[in-house]
Amino acid sequence: MFFEGSEKKVQIIVNESQLSLLTDIADSFWHDLVKSSGAKILSSIENSQSKAFLLSESSLFIWPHKLLLITCGTTQLIKAIEFFINEFSLQAIEQIQYQRKNEYFSYAQPSCFSQDIQVLRQYVSGAAYRFGAVDSHHNYLFHQDNEYKVKVSDKSYEIVAYHISHSASKLLTHGELTANEIRTLFQIDGLFPGFSINDHVFHPFGYSLNGIKNDKFFTVHITPQAESSYISVSANFDLISLLPKLISILEPATIDILTSNELNFEEKVSRNLPSPFVCTSLVKETLSIGYNIVFSSYSQKTKKSSDAVLLSPINDIQSL
Amino acid sequence: MFFEGSEKKVQIIVNESQLSLLTDIADSFWHDLVKSSGAKILSSIENSQSKAFLLSESSLFIWPHKLLLITCGTTQLIKAIEFFINEFSLQAIEQIQYQRKNEYFSYAQPSCFSQDIQVLRQYVSGAAYRFGAVDSHHNYLFHQDNEYKVKVSDKSYEIVAYHISHSASKLLTHGELTANEIRTLFQIDGLFPGFSINDHVFHPFGYSLNGIKNDKFFTVHITPQAESSYISVSANFDLISLLPKLISILEPATIDILTSNELNFEEKVSRNLPSPFVCTSLVKETLSIGYNIVFSSYSQKTKKSSDAVLLSPINDIQSL
Repeated sequence: MFFEGSEKKVQIIVNESQLSLLTDIADSFWHDLVKSSGAKILSSIENSQSKAFLLSESSLFIWPHKLLLITCGTTQLIKAIEFFINEFSLQAIEQIQYQRKNEYFSYAQPSCFSQDIQVLRQYVSGAAYRFGAVDSHHNYLFHQDNEYKVKVSDKSYEIVAYHISHSASKLLTHGELTANEIRTLFQIDGLFPGFSINDHVFHPFGYSLNGIKNDKFFTVHITPQAESSYISVSANFDLISLLPKLISILEPATIDILTSNELNFEEKVSRNLPSPFVCTSLVKETLSIGYNIVFSSYSQKTKKSSDAVLLSPINDIQSL
Repeated sequence: MFFEGSEKKVQIIVNESQLSLLTDIADSFWHDLVKSSGAKILSSIENSQSKAFLLSESSLFIWPHKLLLITCGTTQLIKAIEFFINEFSLQAIEQIQYQRKNEYFSYAQPSCFSQDIQVLRQYVSGAAYRFGAVDSHHNYLFHQDNEYKVKVSDKSYEIVAYHISHSASKLLTHGELTANEIRTLFQIDGLFPGFSINDHVFHPFGYSLNGIKNDKFFTVHITPQAESSYISVSANFDLISLLPKLISILEPATIDILTSNELNFEEKVSRNLPSPFVCTSLVKETLSIGYNIVFSSYSQKTKKSSDAVLLSPINDIQSL
């Protein structure tokens, strides 16, 4: 069964003097907002500085003046952005940043990035970029173009692993692993000490995890199916040192890394990435709002050949 | 301006005792067949063993008992296959093979491969394969599953270059190169001695070439636009020795090679491919009709970073 793990993300910054997203807003609003995108809130954890909702398709994080909504599958995140704008008005919004990855199967998506930003441009003016070539892994990024300036300390990190090994895929799809066993496999407690954790095993496949500690968050989403495997780890603190661990567990064919305001990107990656991986793309851009973005892709040199995939005659995306 | 260079191909073998495609069919039929796909015949060359039509989107080759139709852009090659089947009936057809590459922007295509083979399966039963991962360069292949057996001598070769150097793209898009100058650039006369050549420079960009000599053919299609550059060379004879020349002229970031019945694939490629290229995918399959297929992708190790692409706010595919 095919599932589109590739995520869409929105980060919205609101005016500090007007609104605290953490204390002023009832949970019912977040339920409605998530629902407008086609996803559903399953559960949540919170502390005094942040709140994390686990969704049927990915995650929603709330801080006093920022939200980060991540959705995958065929959800329409753009509708949640419209829902938010219509509730709070543009005066309360200081900045909107919308990011969309290349999908495994873009044909099955209800909209493409170009259509999404046409919707956004009805509300705000902004700049749109593509990081990476159209025919390989890439990220689209739109940001509202205004006076807002990102703090240098405002960093973000994403590591995505594609095409994990058969043994890792088999382990994660045999349908009997508990959340506890998956946390143990990824050594979550050891790698992220002191974080409150909320996680969920999906049936038949899939796993999501949110972790928060003060204003720090990390989130893990696992789509383990062999033909479309996609494992993402995102955080607002440095994840690059996790590369050796992640790679030894998953043995992926390809790794993508996307960071904001990590100024030692190349040095850190070269120190942590095992040698069979070669860099096939490295794209850098400093946005007018002050974000220093780096997106890079790494592939393992192929040592052995594989067989072609015999496609099922059944009419579903699985066979594409 | 964006153009989808990625091709769809069909090869149809007809019954020798029933039909000669070369002598029994009027040109008006080929015009109608090509038109049914959304393309147009521009010109042709012929000899006693074959005929080659240059199309508005790629090429059509005819032999006494075989046709090879290649189309690109947003053409619907599948409609030309239906057109052929409806004209000649399935009794006259010994074998249909349909191939489709990953597109730069599949979202803009009127159908996906799965939908195409649903159409084919209304007429013939067959097997469908994917060579390569969904999220990187790949080829879909469908073949009619019957008693037909391919001859070992029936070989095919395709080399595709993606993301050519800025200087090569600039040279091929400045709009003033004649067909003669492009032939000289690629040293066509020296590399393909004795071939009859028919070529066409498209405006504002693009170039197509058909060459025939007895029953041998080769064809070159150039989509030189920097953001979606795509150069394909196909033939029914060995092209692998052309790799060093092609790479030195185009300096592409990525090379794909697809062959049928080339049994020394890896040895030949490793002898001819310059060292900055590493193999990122190698997929082999022997089809029940006797074709030994190899598809492989090679990327240059990235030595330098590039900037993100600032997308135009204009609503067109170019900005995607």
